[in-house]
Amino acid sequence: MTDNRTAPIGVFDSGVGGLTVVKEIMHQIPNEKVIYFGDTARVPYGSKSKDTITRYSKQIVRFLRTQNVKAIVVACNTASAYALDELSKEIDIPIIGVVKPGAKVAVETTKNGKIGVIGTSGTISSETYTTYMKELNPAIDVRGKACPLFVPLIEEGLWEDPVTDEIVKRYLTDLMDSGIDTLILGCTHYPLIRKTVQRIVGPEVTLVNPAYETARELKALLSSHNLLSDQTSGLGTNIHQFYVSDAAERFQIFANSILKYGILSTKAVNIETY
Amino acid sequence: MTDNRTAPIGVFDSGVGGLTVVKEIMHQIPNEKVIYFGDTARVPYGSKSKDTITRYSKQIVRFLRTQNVKAIVVACNTASAYALDELSKEIDIPIIGVVKPGAKVAVETTKNGKIGVIGTSGTISSETYTTYMKELNPAIDVRGKACPLFVPLIEEGLWEDPVTDEIVKRYLTDLMDSGIDTLILGCTHYPLIRKTVQRIVGPEVTLVNPAYETARELKALLSSHNLLSDQTSGLGTNIHQFYVSDAAERFQIFANSILKYGILSTKAVNIETY
Repeated sequence: MTDNRTAPIGVFDSGVGGLTVVKEIMHQIPNEKVIYFGDTARVPYGSKSKDTITRYSKQIVRFLRTQNVKAIVVACNTASAYALDELSKEIDIPIIGVVKPGAKVAVETTKNGKIGVIGTSGTISSETYTTYMKELNPAIDVRGKACPLFVPLIEEGLWEDPVTDEIVKRYLTDLMDSGIDTLILGCTHYPLIRKTVQRIVGPEVTLVNPAYETARELKALLSSHNLLSDQTSGLGTNIHQFYVSDAAERFQIFANSILKYGILSTKAVNIETY
Repeated sequence: MTDNRTAPIGVFDSGVGGLTVVKEIMHQIPNEKVIYFGDTARVPYGSKSKDTITRYSKQIVRFLRTQNVKAIVVACNTASAYALDELSKEIDIPIIGVVKPGAKVAVETTKNGKIGVIGTSGTISSETYTTYMKELNPAIDVRGKACPLFVPLIEEGLWEDPVTDEIVKRYLTDLMDSGIDTLILGCTHYPLIRKTVQRIVGPEVTLVNPAYETARELKALLSSHNLLSDQTSGLGTNIHQFYVSDAAERFQIFANSILKYGILSTKAVNIETY
């Protein structure tokens, strides 16, 4: 372990959503190689229990370690909220989730101290965003709202659609009425309907995208551990590797709608054996 | 194995949807005990591959066998479509799925020979309904349509809602235009939005509910094997047992909205170890 700066970064999510984080990593630290794992055989995580999500996350970390990653990004809000603390205790390489970076920027952004968080049922009921933000500023007023239909609507391709407008309005009316000036997109899928959400909440509300903040924090973390790659990588996603637990073609199709460069191949892993 | 008529029937689904089949079993053969398994840790099945669904189904069958069931009902259209043939080869007790009974009744019902099938992506792309119906009558014209948003809308409680109306219209317009007179509700969740679907397709289209037909066929199958229980059971669901792979309270809440009698307790099983 004298010099593993050229080793890849492990990134995982319940499925495709974490690719919005990969996109930011590719943009902000383009010299880094990514090994991505999407748990498509057990997706979604958002409606499942803490115990189950923690067990799944540990299996995935064990798989990523076999790929000799130098750091791990939990690119799933639900897994970050439920499992990151326990994962951190068991691991000797840097590991970060998406919740803490998002929470930090939201607290820095708000002017009136009222912050909304939208996410899966698991992320919202865990209150992890609230906990982190209260640690930074106990006076912050946080309102959470679970939005279980957003992921299915996004995966059905209805990113700009009257039905999505209607569902966004229903979920967000109470948050808007409470006077928030900052809204955290607390699920990695949600940046894909960012425009719709912004239109409905209005320009006075600032949207926080934890994917962007996580890539920034990852860069700082790698730098502080002297782990930033100093090799210029080739362009394109062919230097990165993508693994899924279910070999659905759908992953690749959806991935190619998110990432700038096409994914050439996706390998299947039987994650239950890790 | 001289007399196992009083043994329970094993019923499984990816989650809660199969409870619509349990409801029909309780109604049509009330003396039978049911052991239900809902794979809530890995739900949904509808968007996953044949290999994964077959592996999951085999694990569940192994679990149900430890409960000494006398027969098994695959109360999930996707698992029936993908895995039933392989499960049947490996098992020495009666096993039935929901697809064949639904297909049989649809062929008996249609007058103009044009039948629609709605279900998950997996059920529709497997074309299992089509295969069974063509075996019964090669002249039948079958149109399938995957409806990935129905399950999330139903699980969000929008059984009667303008948004559900709109999505039903979008998914079913092409089927309606093709002149079908019979429509199979090819996912165990769909009977819960039966009224909305019927209103939108109009009274001239007959809806087929495989849950109902499966309970009928199960009764005949048990009878032919001399396995029908001759003991009068107590009323209520307390004689039945419910297992899930993820101990979400949500299962019990949703279950109690489907079944007539409340479920007293649900036990968690780590299904990956079977």
